[in-house]
Amino acid sequence: MRKLVPVVCILGLILLAQSSLAAEATQADSTTQHGLSPGVLIGIAVMLVLAKLGGEVFERLGQPAVLGELISGIVLGNLALVGFERAEALKTNDVIAALAEIGVIILLFEVGLESDLKEMLEVGWSSLLVAVLGVIAPFLLGWAVSAYFLPEESRLAHIFIGATLCATSVGITARVFKDLNKLSTREARIILGAAVIDDVLGLLILAVVAGAIKAATNGAGLSLLGIGYITGKALLFLVAAVALGHLVVPRVLRGAGKLETRGVLLTLAVSFCFLLSWAAARVGLAPIVGAFAAGLVLDEVHYRPAGARKEKDLRELLQPVSTFLVPIFFVLMGLKVDLSFFARTDLLGFAVALTLAAIIGKQICAAGVMQRGINRMAIGVGMIPRGEVGLIFAGIGATLILPNEAGQMDPVIGPATFGAVVIMVIATTLVTPPALKWALDRKQKKKSGSPEV
Amino acid sequence: MRKLVPVVCILGLILLAQSSLAAEATQADSTTQHGLSPGVLIGIAVMLVLAKLGGEVFERLGQPAVLGELISGIVLGNLALVGFERAEALKTNDVIAALAEIGVIILLFEVGLESDLKEMLEVGWSSLLVAVLGVIAPFLLGWAVSAYFLPEESRLAHIFIGATLCATSVGITARVFKDLNKLSTREARIILGAAVIDDVLGLLILAVVAGAIKAATNGAGLSLLGIGYITGKALLFLVAAVALGHLVVPRVLRGAGKLETRGVLLTLAVSFCFLLSWAAARVGLAPIVGAFAAGLVLDEVHYRPAGARKEKDLRELLQPVSTFLVPIFFVLMGLKVDLSFFARTDLLGFAVALTLAAIIGKQICAAGVMQRGINRMAIGVGMIPRGEVGLIFAGIGATLILPNEAGQMDPVIGPATFGAVVIMVIATTLVTPPALKWALDRKQKKKSGSPEV
Repeated sequence: MRKLVPVVCILGLILLAQSSLAAEATQADSTTQHGLSPGVLIGIAVMLVLAKLGGEVFERLGQPAVLGELISGIVLGNLALVGFERAEALKTNDVIAALAEIGVIILLFEVGLESDLKEMLEVGWSSLLVAVLGVIAPFLLGWAVSAYFLPEESRLAHIFIGATLCATSVGITARVFKDLNKLSTREARIILGAAVIDDVLGLLILAVVAGAIKAATNGAGLSLLGIGYITGKALLFLVAAVALGHLVVPRVLRGAGKLETRGVLLTLAVSFCFLLSWAAARVGLAPIVGAFAAGLVLDEVHYRPAGARKEKDLRELLQPVSTFLVPIFFVLMGLKVDLSFFARTDLLGFAVALTLAAIIGKQICAAGVMQRGINRMAIGVGMIPRGEVGLIFAGIGATLILPNEAGQMDPVIGPATFGAVVIMVIATTLVTPPALKWALDRKQKKKSGSPEV
Repeated sequence: MRKLVPVVCILGLILLAQSSLAAEATQADSTTQHGLSPGVLIGIAVMLVLAKLGGEVFERLGQPAVLGELISGIVLGNLALVGFERAEALKTNDVIAALAEIGVIILLFEVGLESDLKEMLEVGWSSLLVAVLGVIAPFLLGWAVSAYFLPEESRLAHIFIGATLCATSVGITARVFKDLNKLSTREARIILGAAVIDDVLGLLILAVVAGAIKAATNGAGLSLLGIGYITGKALLFLVAAVALGHLVVPRVLRGAGKLETRGVLLTLAVSFCFLLSWAAARVGLAPIVGAFAAGLVLDEVHYRPAGARKEKDLRELLQPVSTFLVPIFFVLMGLKVDLSFFARTDLLGFAVALTLAAIIGKQICAAGVMQRGINRMAIGVGMIPRGEVGLIFAGIGATLILPNEAGQMDPVIGPATFGAVVIMVIATTLVTPPALKWALDRKQKKKSGSPEV
């Protein structure tokens, strides 16, 4: 019997080869049909390994791991400068972009879980003031810088560049606080609260500025009603998320406790996170705001049925998912950093001024902290990163057309201005992890024994 | 100070509203730039919740949870028949397809981790014989059915339809064994081994048949060399994967144990899984074959450093990732089932005959089991599902052009034939979970006290 096997095997192959004939290179067909290209698989593998290596190196240097992930991405993304082009496809791959986005959603969900709604509300007024000042100051500074460097552009263009500096991209800061195990500090709570409010304000600014530019070209009028509608939707979302969390989620989770299948808790939690992320996106907010709200709300209800439940703690269950997906976000962020921008001396003056406006503008917002004993420096530094939010603004600006002083139609954000915004985003992103760690350490040394830091 | 806040807040808003004006509906812009459309978020949330509900219902009915996930998907996917169209977009969404594919890769990686290479090799000859018989029998039956029902088609078309019936889609079977906690049985090992060999054989058949059809149209000749090259690559991959696992992976993992960052074990394991999935795809095999090989290989080395390692067991770490991603695969599989095919009476005769050929053909392969005391019925049933593999074959067939008897150029697989293949795939997929559970239970009752089942 045993000897029959190879014979049958070979007979089968001959049968097949005889039955009809010739081959070659058709194997590519069988893989392209899959929806997931093999390049994505190897891309993710490389990104994950580099993220861990980079994180490890920077952790040993006493820096947050996220900085290592960013720099790994930057190195990989700029290998094209020395002739290695294979990583280029990762930058624009939709699947990797989607995984990265899901990664940052999971990160903010985790951060939300580690935050407490009541404690957030305790510093709510500080958050609000920090957010508002942190929007107004960079906005005015950005406007001034633009007016100084680009005198030929119209006033609306300056305003748009000012708007580009407003919105905080909270992913980096949340990750640094997480890396340093400081998510429970009041500083972290104020910044997270301010980031949520910032997102609402950013939404308004974008709507107002883009609307104004469209009005300037189409001659359509001002619509305070429209602005009120957008604000109303965003606020309604936040209120609804909290209400949902208090009234519906506890019952659902109690019911789910009776189900027999494995992984019910994680499945429902992730689904709830995605539901609120979707709802946030629908009202025009960033999906991560929804994810953060979902985490805040679930945290509240989680502790009550925890004793009765055999399954592991939700945060523990989420950790492998975030280990897998979160680094993809930060490595991709690094990948998209095009170092050749820094060689463009024509941009550098404007870019440096814009970066300083962005950084100084956010330091002013630390004045909004009302509690005593708070590390104001850390608040200001934590609000610095603009990340992708600034790029999204600039990207929209590039699609808007406006008559310039000479009467020609120009995009509001031209290629050179866009480059300067990119440099500002890179600089604010990279400066934050070490600066925030320094600001937190500094306070700790000065006030050792403080219960807060 | 406290009363100042709302004033500043309102002032800021007025400033912004004044500075320039009008808004509305620009919020869509800020979300479409994200790469991840909000529809994907809500889609995943709905798919996950439905998967859990369906799984729960079927588990209570004593069936494997995967059947519930499939049927949840079928229900959701066919709501369009009663006027609900919102789920249609999920069927063709690239991100969801990619997440599903990653899900099934993670599933086979987990299955590989739970399998043991030595134990797999013990039943290796059985696996080989089962695989070879399980390819030849359905191939010949499919050819015969096609020749009977479609006498006007050319011989190559019949051969192609026969080839469509060959490849086993092991995802469903692996999942059923996992749901029933029977992955360590010899039956499971034989089927998993046969599935890997099946994939190599399927690759060869596809190459041979597609090559023959191209030769028939282009007049290019037979290339035994090409076939040998494809086989060689596939076998080389399998050998290299095992060698890599024995020589390189233990050292890497030992080195990784010294790293300080969290999640090193999971990150390296997932990266290794994706690396082998990519390599498998590169040599023309299914990515899941690579993932399974990665799991097999890691299993070997894992137990040695386990005692010294503080981190959790790799399988435990993987479970949340698979809880999140695996159901997306099976719900999507269900979503793509178009029930309206079953209403096409013109197809049904051919489809039923094809399905029977597919099922009976795989029962014959149970004769290839050489060990005694094995549940042959379970082996035959476990090899039934064709899943997407059959569809991929049929899809390729639809793109190949061949002169028919009347001398006109026709696709090898026309729309009607494709419909029949779809019905065959649906039927074999849905029949497997309950049939396999029945086959395993039946043996258990008959031979209770057997150490194996």
